[in-house]
Amino acid sequence: MTLVVSKYGGSSLADARRITRIATRLAGLRRDGDDVVVVVSAMGKTTDSLIALARQITAEPEAREMDVLLSTGEIVSSTLMAMALKALGVPSISLTGAQAGIRTNSMYSRARIETIDPSRIRRELAAGKVVVVAGFQGLTAEDDVTTLGRGGSDTTAVALAAALGAGRAEIFTDVEGVYTADPRIEPKARPLREIGYEEMLELASQGARVMHPRAVEVGQLYDLPILVASSFGTGPGTLIRKETTMEAQNKARGIAHDTDVAKITVLGVPDHPGIAARLFEPLAEAGISVDTIVQNSSLQGLTDLSFTVARNDLARARTIVEPISKEIDAGGLEHDAHLGKVSVVGTGMLSAPGYAARMFRTLYEADVNIDMITTSEIRITCIISEDRVADAVRALHSAFQLDQP
Amino acid sequence: MTLVVSKYGGSSLADARRITRIATRLAGLRRDGDDVVVVVSAMGKTTDSLIALARQITAEPEAREMDVLLSTGEIVSSTLMAMALKALGVPSISLTGAQAGIRTNSMYSRARIETIDPSRIRRELAAGKVVVVAGFQGLTAEDDVTTLGRGGSDTTAVALAAALGAGRAEIFTDVEGVYTADPRIEPKARPLREIGYEEMLELASQGARVMHPRAVEVGQLYDLPILVASSFGTGPGTLIRKETTMEAQNKARGIAHDTDVAKITVLGVPDHPGIAARLFEPLAEAGISVDTIVQNSSLQGLTDLSFTVARNDLARARTIVEPISKEIDAGGLEHDAHLGKVSVVGTGMLSAPGYAARMFRTLYEADVNIDMITTSEIRITCIISEDRVADAVRALHSAFQLDQP
Repeated sequence: MTLVVSKYGGSSLADARRITRIATRLAGLRRDGDDVVVVVSAMGKTTDSLIALARQITAEPEAREMDVLLSTGEIVSSTLMAMALKALGVPSISLTGAQAGIRTNSMYSRARIETIDPSRIRRELAAGKVVVVAGFQGLTAEDDVTTLGRGGSDTTAVALAAALGAGRAEIFTDVEGVYTADPRIEPKARPLREIGYEEMLELASQGARVMHPRAVEVGQLYDLPILVASSFGTGPGTLIRKETTMEAQNKARGIAHDTDVAKITVLGVPDHPGIAARLFEPLAEAGISVDTIVQNSSLQGLTDLSFTVARNDLARARTIVEPISKEIDAGGLEHDAHLGKVSVVGTGMLSAPGYAARMFRTLYEADVNIDMITTSEIRITCIISEDRVADAVRALHSAFQLDQP
Repeated sequence: MTLVVSKYGGSSLADARRITRIATRLAGLRRDGDDVVVVVSAMGKTTDSLIALARQITAEPEAREMDVLLSTGEIVSSTLMAMALKALGVPSISLTGAQAGIRTNSMYSRARIETIDPSRIRRELAAGKVVVVAGFQGLTAEDDVTTLGRGGSDTTAVALAAALGAGRAEIFTDVEGVYTADPRIEPKARPLREIGYEEMLELASQGARVMHPRAVEVGQLYDLPILVASSFGTGPGTLIRKETTMEAQNKARGIAHDTDVAKITVLGVPDHPGIAARLFEPLAEAGISVDTIVQNSSLQGLTDLSFTVARNDLARARTIVEPISKEIDAGGLEHDAHLGKVSVVGTGMLSAPGYAARMFRTLYEADVNIDMITTSEIRITCIISEDRVADAVRALHSAFQLDQP
């Protein structure tokens, strides 16, 4: 008997017909004798509607209340899926994150799973039921509801698959898998058959919104393969798993991009130890994710320090950084709200000769100005103007021959 | 410091503006130094929408899943109310039924509260917070979510007021209080200033849908006065409390009605002991509430037994009763799906001379045919044709001079 742990996203559950369609597929698995655990997201645009509702009440809804509010979206779809299965004659039960034994820290809106007690799920599976788990949520030690951040249902599925000892987690979504670039921007983009965790992390965190990065991290931590496939199509999908160096080494695997980038530059920062901590610790405490950090060349003991945040966080980040920049006698503060990011991703790529040069030349020939550059072992990233991102993606996809298998 | 426990219904919370309006009122109470616990229903038509969603999936949604689904409606409004209070500068916290310590039995869709552990509420009150509790729901000993049945938020509020030792519970709704009859049918109906628990129970269970009957029972059990008042108007409302015999005795207090009545008659039942149990025990096990039961005059050891159920339960009730009626050699089964009910309610009324006679004469003069009659200490009820209910209510309201203070 195989244990299948799968997750379906909101667009696969957008209405009663789609829910019943997924339920029919799950019923087939159950009849074949598999144990089935399914993690569901909120239906269609539910989460957006709930956020809009909260914003009608107040411009700054409190994070704890927001988490309780948003968690209801996944609970609703879990009950509907359980009903649909039952209507097909398949015993089933819905479980909230709390009932599924998922305990998190108390970082509201981006909580991390700390422990999973799968005993209730095991009990229901043993009773022959398909177990439908509301994704995206957990409970703190104080019994308060948390959410895992956007896309957190992926994390729920991968963490449950690990806790239950499943062979892999299956993430069904509205795309055919992980693409060499965003196919909405580059029509020649192809789905990859396999990709390593690290490469996937770079693609995901750089803006290829197929999967939640934390889900990939959890998969990597437990060495649990994750299949990403379409819930509508019939393609094989992409298997995310430990790098198989033979195939993946020294090869550009995909182009990632992000159009939601804002930059803050602190000018003329005295080049002392501890300055960076004074700047970034308060941002972290405020829950603002800092992405790229670049410190420009030092000049007479002074340096310019730039970092990027999501556009949404720009105003808050400036409010936090402004007084600190004065305390440390910096020369001033600049910001740019309209930036984007484009990355070439591939294991071992940076150490191979010519990749960085080819990227910069391609952007130059496409008339794209580079604002910042950062690199990692498996990624070269350029911060560019937001309105040049699509052209840059297409130029790089072609230059790195990603349109060819 | 006074502890105020109040409940607001769905129409008082139909949109962000109304929620903020209620929050403003609660903020005023808090600023006056009161401890404030507020129980909220689902917004506007949310519960109906969720039911419609479930029915798109399956004609017969499972009760356990339905309860989890419906409980989300109250959770949503509790978070929005907490946000609205916070936006007004008032510390607040939303609690689900589970977090509020409400434990119920596991009779899904009509669970009964078994215990309340108010320690979390007390802790949050002590921290100076307004506590917003999602009404209508609780948790079984197995940590499964239950709901208390339609209108169950009233029960939540009264039970919490009792558990917390509040002086009374306040139920804010879209009417000015308990009326002498349904004002949508009898425009001359007046709100009562006071009414006894028993009278209120008869009015409520006979169809005056101001309050959930179980809430009144809980109030009576703990001798806790319940104020019913409008959340929009400024009237004094109706105080439901222990009968003050001086005022209430020997007086018709109101006309109740119900248009949702179906009747099943088992013809030619052998007049043996144990027959009634054989009929009604399976109905109870199926969770079907039987309302009026009338056994007609015995004829040669055979009797006709009639009972009423909600129209929704008629088909299921027939399916259950049919095989039993054959087993007990009854003469046959009849049913009528289009009945209604009208009652005159008042403590001690039945023992006072002339009330029953006046009721029957009034209906006769209004050309209303009486199908069944039942009485209790404080109520005379006639089952009549559904389409004659409105006329009957108006005729009785006038005949018992309820339009005059």
